Amino acid sequence: MSNPDPTRRNESSRRAVLTATLDLLQEVPYTRLSIEGIATRAGVGKQTIYRWWPSKAAVLFDAFLILSEADAGEPPELPDTGDLRADLMLVLRATAAELDSPQLAEPMRALATEVAHDAGLARSYHERLDAPLREAKRRRLRSAQATGELAADLDLDVAVDIIWGPVLNRWLQRGGPLDEAYLEALLDTALKGMQPRRHEL
Amino acid sequence: MSNPDPTRRNESSRRAVLTATLDLLQEVPYTRLSIEGIATRAGVGKQTIYRWWPSKAAVLFDAFLILSEADAGEPPELPDTGDLRADLMLVLRATAAELDSPQLAEPMRALATEVAHDAGLARSYHERLDAPLREAKRRRLRSAQATGELAADLDLDVAVDIIWGPVLNRWLQRGGPLDEAYLEALLDTALKGMQPRRHEL
Repeated sequence: MSNPDPTRRNESSRRAVLTATLDLLQEVPYTRLSIEGIATRAGVGKQTIYRWWPSKAAVLFDAFLILSEADAGEPPELPDTGDLRADLMLVLRATAAELDSPQLAEPMRALATEVAHDAGLARSYHERLDAPLREAKRRRLRSAQATGELAADLDLDVAVDIIWGPVLNRWLQRGGPLDEAYLEALLDTALKGMQPRRHEL
Repeated sequence: MSNPDPTRRNESSRRAVLTATLDLLQEVPYTRLSIEGIATRAGVGKQTIYRWWPSKAAVLFDAFLILSEADAGEPPELPDTGDLRADLMLVLRATAAELDSPQLAEPMRALATEVAHDAGLARSYHERLDAPLREAKRRRLRSAQATGELAADLDLDVAVDIIWGPVLNRWLQRGGPLDEAYLEALLDTALKGMQPRRHEL
């Protein structure tokens, strides 16, 4: 056992780096997080990090992949009780809580701003992190189309943007709190625009 | 004239720094812009910059104030032809063109991401840069309430977020193009949710 499997050793260093990154973001703002700091916390050499990741943003991105894998490989699913407004209120409340939580706020701001500055990272983000979530949102809206709660001709991508875009933008730009009153008012107005027209009913 | 008014000399150095900042953002990404680089381009000492601004973000913010002052002190105003959808289409098209323009894209991404990471800067941003613009948007929507195009009980802040939030979020997170088809679909669905209910007509 003095010479353990190098693949496993690599995987354990990789995990240590990603965990160290998320841990450190509880303590320092992302803008002051350094590869050196991550290496020290993870107990690996700086060169190990540079060998596997081209940038701090790439490390952060992989740390997010680990977080999303922690959901045990299940595709994300929105609640579907048959009451779209109630289900979306649950989801938006949970999203607001995540965005405001000390564990996730800083890493999520960091990811959002790196995506804003880096077109290549943005592509990976949309393909690997955002796409499954967006598909889950569309699936819930499609189900509401099937039950007649939403218009049959609704553009589901626009609908997702109208419901979630204001929330993400208000949070990221610090425009105001994502409190109950805001989320209710948002859903009321957004969903009203998505209902079937009278003659469709 | 060998000893010109120091206030005027200061003002001219200040302008040089802010102009240099915007100029450099045509050449280097914001993340690689340095105070040293700005000082060199502006022809001032690094210490001059540090004396007036606590951070690169603060310099950027003041550069934006100069850009907005360039509108000659007039408060911003949205077009009001009596056709809300057509007026908003004009505005969103202009916004999309600005967000995609080589002159403004990089500075605006930089400002948005600094605001995301810095609560103090975010406060200044909302008070000094965003507030007059947001009030102009609310004013246009209020006028549409007066003519019966929009519901009298519409929450105007939520309405502004539903119209502009998806645009800003899609741009900043590089979710897709802000093309004509997207803007039309967005406005159709967003405005439908803001119309008066039948019995109000």
